[in-house]
Amino acid sequence: MTLADRWLLPEGVDEALPKQAAKIEHLRRTLLDLHKSWGYQLVIPPLLEYLDSLLTGAGSDLEIETFKVIDQLSGRLMGIRADFTSQVARIDAHCLKSESVQRLSYCGSVLRTMPDGLDGTRGPIQLGAELYGHGGVESDIEVLSLMLQTLSAAGLSDLVLDLGHVDIVNGVLSACDIEQDTESKLIELYKTKDLPELDRYVDSLSLPKEQKQWLTGLPRLCGGKEVLMQANNLFAGIADTVLDALSLLQKLSDVLSLRYPNVGLHFDLSDLVSYSYHTGVVFAAYVPGHGNAIARGGRYNNIGQVFGRSRPATGFSTDVKALVALSDVVVIQPKTVLSPVCSSEEQWQKINSLRAQGYRVVEALDELCSEKADFTLDFVDSAWQLMPIQK
Amino acid sequence: MTLADRWLLPEGVDEALPKQAAKIEHLRRTLLDLHKSWGYQLVIPPLLEYLDSLLTGAGSDLEIETFKVIDQLSGRLMGIRADFTSQVARIDAHCLKSESVQRLSYCGSVLRTMPDGLDGTRGPIQLGAELYGHGGVESDIEVLSLMLQTLSAAGLSDLVLDLGHVDIVNGVLSACDIEQDTESKLIELYKTKDLPELDRYVDSLSLPKEQKQWLTGLPRLCGGKEVLMQANNLFAGIADTVLDALSLLQKLSDVLSLRYPNVGLHFDLSDLVSYSYHTGVVFAAYVPGHGNAIARGGRYNNIGQVFGRSRPATGFSTDVKALVALSDVVVIQPKTVLSPVCSSEEQWQKINSLRAQGYRVVEALDELCSEKADFTLDFVDSAWQLMPIQK
Repeated sequence: MTLADRWLLPEGVDEALPKQAAKIEHLRRTLLDLHKSWGYQLVIPPLLEYLDSLLTGAGSDLEIETFKVIDQLSGRLMGIRADFTSQVARIDAHCLKSESVQRLSYCGSVLRTMPDGLDGTRGPIQLGAELYGHGGVESDIEVLSLMLQTLSAAGLSDLVLDLGHVDIVNGVLSACDIEQDTESKLIELYKTKDLPELDRYVDSLSLPKEQKQWLTGLPRLCGGKEVLMQANNLFAGIADTVLDALSLLQKLSDVLSLRYPNVGLHFDLSDLVSYSYHTGVVFAAYVPGHGNAIARGGRYNNIGQVFGRSRPATGFSTDVKALVALSDVVVIQPKTVLSPVCSSEEQWQKINSLRAQGYRVVEALDELCSEKADFTLDFVDSAWQLMPIQK
Repeated sequence: MTLADRWLLPEGVDEALPKQAAKIEHLRRTLLDLHKSWGYQLVIPPLLEYLDSLLTGAGSDLEIETFKVIDQLSGRLMGIRADFTSQVARIDAHCLKSESVQRLSYCGSVLRTMPDGLDGTRGPIQLGAELYGHGGVESDIEVLSLMLQTLSAAGLSDLVLDLGHVDIVNGVLSACDIEQDTESKLIELYKTKDLPELDRYVDSLSLPKEQKQWLTGLPRLCGGKEVLMQANNLFAGIADTVLDALSLLQKLSDVLSLRYPNVGLHFDLSDLVSYSYHTGVVFAAYVPGHGNAIARGGRYNNIGQVFGRSRPATGFSTDVKALVALSDVVVIQPKTVLSPVCSSEEQWQKINSLRAQGYRVVEALDELCSEKADFTLDFVDSAWQLMPIQK
């Protein structure tokens, strides 16, 4: 192994040097404090769990993304978390027995077997919030607002929020008289957005005209707020689940437009890009020039069921490292004092008192670092005093 | 798999629920801020690296403690870090090219294959500091002082600091005319502290009387500051490395006694419980009633050599979770305001302004959480106002 190899990091794995690390730490604190001010309590789930616990509920999509190791103590398979959601669900279900609404937040490293997300990373610092025990639109609004507030506190602007609802595709497909095979084929066409092929395929089916209009119209319901009105027209008379979902999206759209007038709203009613555990509204936030979502979330009721407690749940997550890469976080550095190596009780007291006052006091172990300091600590007139450095 | 199994965590793996998580986060910030005020810059090394990088230099003792996974992209073995030291050494050696003294700090999860440390944990939150580029006693003093300041800031008292130096055992053994086999046997006896057996064994060797006195006297040099004087007497005339090490320990002892008069100093000159990468002073801090060290460190020059840059280095680390378990961290919670679910622009503005002022404002999605609040937000006299809750 050559020297060069030894400091090479694996693809999708990166480290933060002082400048970037200071930004990450600053943003981490800002965002966790924001979540706290909204009533979200921090929890710290373990990095490592039995694979069964990590992958139940939320997790079956995550199996391929999760690094596995063997527990030498039990012989069982364990996984390094690739996502926090099922861990936080376990905590709500098992550890916090309260019947009332539970608001939880988290921030920590996750690992993924393959590069993913905004920067093709395998080691994001995931930060997110989850709300348990409330199934109404109010909690969807709260979590969506907190997500937008989080991105705004991170200094991001020109946000576009993508909104969808899993009951729409499901409801439309159920409302049509189609077989399982046909449904699979349609879902595939919705995923690839191959509209000409979709039209040909639907035309070949023997279905009532109205149902054909539903099936070909659905992926065209893609755009701004006007889409919801068009959907209400197209799907008038369809199953209630679809209409309820549209009505929910309308309410979210109304409230968010008032609260965050600068955030663009985008609807894609045939969107299927979400984890399979979602049960209601799904959403993702984008910034211009980046194809991947900077934050995403949605409703996933009953996730705690496998842990013995089924409750409504909704939440979102983002990646602090990606936020730092996209925003201009400015960290205000403390004033730096360069002190001679400490050699007396008085000097030691003075240095510690300056540190307690917010100064950064560095002992001059060598001659090279003086240029970055704002003051020197000098012994003048029988006392240790701060002397400004002329720059 | 039963429900009960699903929420069971592996042995030595734990999670922090809100109360404990708040303490961990509070302490993490306090300690990182302390390190910053001493001039230490935060770095965030990756959780995952090629095994070769993780285990070089500092790391060969860590091989058995490190979880290994295979990189699906390169086919190479990667490890989840079990310790930060070699990662930070890599950063100093490769990423920060400065020739001057470099002060770095870190805080993050590490994983170990087997339970270890104060609470038998496999997932400590390691926090530490490293100083590169200075080989003199001044940097040993700085790092030791920062470690004691860190423990003090975490609220620990009644500390005992154990000090030793790797050159003492090595120097005494080299100064005697013994074979490799004999040396191994002696090291084993020093490790087990079997003094009667040691005496019998040394007596059986054909060595000058003085050397026998050195070998049997060494493990008895164990106790307070008086040990250093006794060692100087016993080893008068031995190799300079031993005398230099004793002189270094004397200097550390003098300065630390002045700076931290309440910290007990303990010397064990035959101590061999340290990672094999140490090259100078080694130290560990203890609190009463706990067998394992709460923080430990030492000098490990040349650790960066395998990464292409050999520099003097010294540092220490501790576990934030263990610190929280041992101290009475008090986290001051913000005043909590219970607000009706937000339904107007005015209410939304008021809520956000309260949050920005430091209040924790919780929307009352259900009726169960009111008891914990200090205020309600009520619409009185045409305005949203804080009303104290009578307790």
